[in-house]
Amino acid sequence: MSQTVDSFSFAKRIPATPSIGSTTVTKQDHVHLSFGFAAPHLFPIEQLSQSAAEAVTLHGRKALQYSGSVGPGQILKWIQARSQVHGIHVELDQILVTYGSTQGIDLATRILVEPGDHVWVESPSFFSALQAFRTAEAEITSFPIDEEGVRVDLIEHALLNAKQNGKPLPKFLYTMPTYHNPGGVTLSVERRKRLVQLAEIYNFFILEDDAYSELNFTGNRYPPLYTLFPERVIYLNTFSKIIAPGLRLGWIFADSNVIAKIKLLNLGGSIGVFTQEIVAKLLDGFAFQEHVDSLIDHYRQQRDVMANAVKNSFGEHVTFHLPEGGFYIWLRFADEVNTSDFLEDAANRGVSFVDGKSFYVNPEGFQYARLCFSYVSEDQIVRGVQSFADAYFAYINKAVS
Amino acid sequence: MSQTVDSFSFAKRIPATPSIGSTTVTKQDHVHLSFGFAAPHLFPIEQLSQSAAEAVTLHGRKALQYSGSVGPGQILKWIQARSQVHGIHVELDQILVTYGSTQGIDLATRILVEPGDHVWVESPSFFSALQAFRTAEAEITSFPIDEEGVRVDLIEHALLNAKQNGKPLPKFLYTMPTYHNPGGVTLSVERRKRLVQLAEIYNFFILEDDAYSELNFTGNRYPPLYTLFPERVIYLNTFSKIIAPGLRLGWIFADSNVIAKIKLLNLGGSIGVFTQEIVAKLLDGFAFQEHVDSLIDHYRQQRDVMANAVKNSFGEHVTFHLPEGGFYIWLRFADEVNTSDFLEDAANRGVSFVDGKSFYVNPEGFQYARLCFSYVSEDQIVRGVQSFADAYFAYINKAVS
Repeated sequence: MSQTVDSFSFAKRIPATPSIGSTTVTKQDHVHLSFGFAAPHLFPIEQLSQSAAEAVTLHGRKALQYSGSVGPGQILKWIQARSQVHGIHVELDQILVTYGSTQGIDLATRILVEPGDHVWVESPSFFSALQAFRTAEAEITSFPIDEEGVRVDLIEHALLNAKQNGKPLPKFLYTMPTYHNPGGVTLSVERRKRLVQLAEIYNFFILEDDAYSELNFTGNRYPPLYTLFPERVIYLNTFSKIIAPGLRLGWIFADSNVIAKIKLLNLGGSIGVFTQEIVAKLLDGFAFQEHVDSLIDHYRQQRDVMANAVKNSFGEHVTFHLPEGGFYIWLRFADEVNTSDFLEDAANRGVSFVDGKSFYVNPEGFQYARLCFSYVSEDQIVRGVQSFADAYFAYINKAVS
Repeated sequence: MSQTVDSFSFAKRIPATPSIGSTTVTKQDHVHLSFGFAAPHLFPIEQLSQSAAEAVTLHGRKALQYSGSVGPGQILKWIQARSQVHGIHVELDQILVTYGSTQGIDLATRILVEPGDHVWVESPSFFSALQAFRTAEAEITSFPIDEEGVRVDLIEHALLNAKQNGKPLPKFLYTMPTYHNPGGVTLSVERRKRLVQLAEIYNFFILEDDAYSELNFTGNRYPPLYTLFPERVIYLNTFSKIIAPGLRLGWIFADSNVIAKIKLLNLGGSIGVFTQEIVAKLLDGFAFQEHVDSLIDHYRQQRDVMANAVKNSFGEHVTFHLPEGGFYIWLRFADEVNTSDFLEDAANRGVSFVDGKSFYVNPEGFQYARLCFSYVSEDQIVRGVQSFADAYFAYINKAVS
């Protein structure tokens, strides 16, 4: 048959390229400072292996049917109880389990926006979220962050301006208030309070991505936006950073009416109940706080090793905010630097990072780079940061000469 | 705060109601003839329990990372090899693993249609698929089925008419050519050939849902539409009926360019790799053909028990097509019967079924009912069908009196 795929007009929502570029891995001992992955040696492997076998044996036939056995209910209750530690009090009908935060972002976007609707984001922001908003054919506007998180004053100004000039208001603002990816910053309490007031006044939702909340290196507590305005915040979290990403399990908190709407849209019915049975079995009797404490100790140490390595290898050539939690250090170079220009050379030298522009809606952020300290060893951090610095200095020396 | 969720304008795509109504279960020994579920006693529990433990132990840390270990690759190869038995020859870049067929339908719909685009379906059709098309804000047109599957002659007539009158052509046709849900019918070879010719001439895609293909009671073989026109058919299948639905694993076959587009849209990246590792481990060395043969033997016997029960309990009051495979018997009552009217009484008598109208886009199909023989025991089938008949006869006696 002669017909080719090219003659068909596909939906406009398909993005032209993946949300993030990748470089070719050329060396055996390549250091992946680009991967925002949890440390695999901290996955509770033995417990999961045992839980997997037990879940099937104990609840097997029901666990493998569409709606599962006891697991999905137990997970809801575990999430409910654990969230109280973070000051979040939710009823069971305010929780929905998802295939990781990514599905949470996608579902929330699909219930809130039509093509052409406006979504506001932080700049920088999480590239997979930006991709989700693009595929929803949303108009995206971004607002800068500083040391205290997103510039709520600029958001307020823009809202007022839009209102006064009859311009479209956002359907929602997507924010990572705590341990921002990639910025590493945390939204101040004062800004949190003002932000939810704005959501009320200007009638928009806040999509709060709290994926790193358990990885708190300092003990400082910030109220989740959801606790300040549960009617208008859709809160996202995930087991990816605290158990393991390969499970693809996350959750949403929202007003029960919003959860009901998402359920109507979520055609697959319940989320992989088999995995839920296994995770429920794991969590039952698992010393979770102890586990999280060991994650925190490990990642805090990794952060410190990376911060020192950056100081040693780059000196005054970069600045960064020391993150209070999470996985990332976000380096700022001089304004004339374009980190995309030495991505390839860094790869040739055996290290990967994510260039600044990948985190922006508009062509900007070229002078930034994201390094991730979670996935690699201390030794790799030191070696990787040095290779990265070698690529940078070769780049600026070439620019000068 | 006084703001309520009601003051916000949500996306139009959210359906008003679930895709299918449900009745209250009032009796302990309630017979679920409405559930299109696989028979749980045929799930390979022991093997899955062992595979789960082994997958974690052998590939643990990688298996739990985002992209997994060996499992996802092994599953692709298994699907590729198994499909050859059904005459389907695909390269690995023509396969995408999904969270069950439902995600496959959703992803295919999202790459093919914009709001307002036209989607053509069979009447009756699968309610979850109809819900997916509605949430994509597609305009849906339906074409009746008969004993040989969908009326391709009527589709051809409508295409010609649309072309001549400058009316919109469909972006795709959604069809279940083999062991139709709920109709139980199978599309003839002649119609298959004509249908793919039409897709070529009129430049549309075919979304072929082949979820029941392995459950072949007769040995008769029908060529999947995908084999007749791989460039323009997106083929969907699932492990739900052949291993277990709770795994939520399915797959798509399509042109490699189409697969690439879907991957760009599929923001969650790889599908629950942990589950894939477990299923890959299960399939490795699993006597799959033997397993499928036992499923076929069981479901064929169930079909026969149900067909006999229907004849015994209803006599001349219903007609149906004896399905060559799958899970369903689709009963046709006299035209003036409305099966929705005795749904509740049947529930009170301890039996559930799905009323005809749930499978239609327009208000029609009232005189049909879907019974599922897969989930229940032989004893339950006989008892359930009798209770269902009792509800029906009470209904017509009341109508007469």
